[in-house]
Amino acid sequence: MKRTAFFISDGTGITAEALGNSLLMQFEKIDFHKVILPYTDTVEKAREAVKRIRRAAEDDGVRPLIFDTIVDEKIRAELRSAEGCMVDIFGTFLEPLEQELGAKSTYTVGSSHSIASKVGYDRRIDAMNFALDNDDGARIRQYDEADLILVGVSRSGKTPTCIYLALQYGIKAANFPITEDEILDQKLPKALKIHRHKIFGLTIDPERLALIRHERKPNSRYSSIKQCNYEVEEVEMMYRRERIPFLNSTDYSVEEISTRILLMTGIERRIR
Amino acid sequence: MKRTAFFISDGTGITAEALGNSLLMQFEKIDFHKVILPYTDTVEKAREAVKRIRRAAEDDGVRPLIFDTIVDEKIRAELRSAEGCMVDIFGTFLEPLEQELGAKSTYTVGSSHSIASKVGYDRRIDAMNFALDNDDGARIRQYDEADLILVGVSRSGKTPTCIYLALQYGIKAANFPITEDEILDQKLPKALKIHRHKIFGLTIDPERLALIRHERKPNSRYSSIKQCNYEVEEVEMMYRRERIPFLNSTDYSVEEISTRILLMTGIERRIR
Repeated sequence: MKRTAFFISDGTGITAEALGNSLLMQFEKIDFHKVILPYTDTVEKAREAVKRIRRAAEDDGVRPLIFDTIVDEKIRAELRSAEGCMVDIFGTFLEPLEQELGAKSTYTVGSSHSIASKVGYDRRIDAMNFALDNDDGARIRQYDEADLILVGVSRSGKTPTCIYLALQYGIKAANFPITEDEILDQKLPKALKIHRHKIFGLTIDPERLALIRHERKPNSRYSSIKQCNYEVEEVEMMYRRERIPFLNSTDYSVEEISTRILLMTGIERRIR
Repeated sequence: MKRTAFFISDGTGITAEALGNSLLMQFEKIDFHKVILPYTDTVEKAREAVKRIRRAAEDDGVRPLIFDTIVDEKIRAELRSAEGCMVDIFGTFLEPLEQELGAKSTYTVGSSHSIASKVGYDRRIDAMNFALDNDDGARIRQYDEADLILVGVSRSGKTPTCIYLALQYGIKAANFPITEDEILDQKLPKALKIHRHKIFGLTIDPERLALIRHERKPNSRYSSIKQCNYEVEEVEMMYRRERIPFLNSTDYSVEEISTRILLMTGIERRIR
């Protein structure tokens, strides 16, 4: 069974998509065809959207779902005329919130992913540059500035996690690879030792690690299960010995790894 | 006026935060104290949350707001006992959606930012590695694989945009810097020419560019307003001459730049 779902926003559409997807994921058996219409910020654009909704209704033989995060009442009214099944966030929650807060909504359009919150935004971009500059142990002299230093063997998920923490939460995360040198040394590198309280470890199942490494360097010593077993075992021993908090990233998305690290370390979001 | 707002989720909390923030941004004059409680996936954890909500109510002298994206009805019921002002997404929309779709919700917990959608997830991480490997013109031999090649002068926003497109939408975006060499040549580098249909340009106001460059290299020729003026003028002329679609990134967040590029180019999201 096919069903069209529209995500319509006056801004980027990111909130409408996130919300719509989290609801649609509850109906696994239905094959949703998703259409995203960002920047629907005039009545004219809403009219275009209405045409597309009606066309989808005809094609599907059933009315489409509409997830909208549009603030302007006139634009929302136009969308309602398409007679889809509306999941209308602002229409549903804004009035009760106005009453609860005893304040009028300012009806700010599409602001939640805009540059509007300038301080927060600059912080996020700064943090992203920090993550890129301090990737893979490239530099260590900026560790004073770091909120977090992620360690782990090659391909355990350090870089994507650092970048996500920066982009989503404005957190400055450096990362440092634990290589065979560190393992043979049986101790933390000096650069890390003085920032011990900022260190967090990632680990990963050796089988999964071998698969990921194999994509990069097929049939190498680096990607062999024997080498992966050895490195993972040693690095976990190091975490325990040095009392470094750590997480196994195997079954987690970068969003989950990031939010779990925040929860485990108590590091605060740097934005908002 | 201070008011506490809780974002409570059985998963990462990313959807609850996005939704809550987009609603709270409509009340600019109120000073919200935001508390995020991810992975609230048992009744016990919900009880802990209830305690925190009640404490906030006492401290503030007014009941907190609760934005939750919890699927499990028992956990939601526990949260309701805190007597906050609940903005209850699943409670509000799931039943009408079940009726509309003639299907029962599967009550899948915290899945929207999990690794659940394995294909989509791998694609996003692949795209992120692609963006990092193909940053700043570092390589050009993978351009066949690219969905998009972003061009622009140094510090016009190429790298963050490529990474965001990868992480959010699984789009493989490379980026290539337009330096004085390219400007003096008065033509597109050969590596780009054969992929002309994939090229998209970024530009930026020279004043803003000078500021950003100044942070990197203070008082340099590179960050001088004269140099910035020159480069921006030339690169915009190049875009026009070569008929490269382009966008001025000055007033836009990386989310806005990314979604606008998708809208302007028609490139499809590679996930879901």
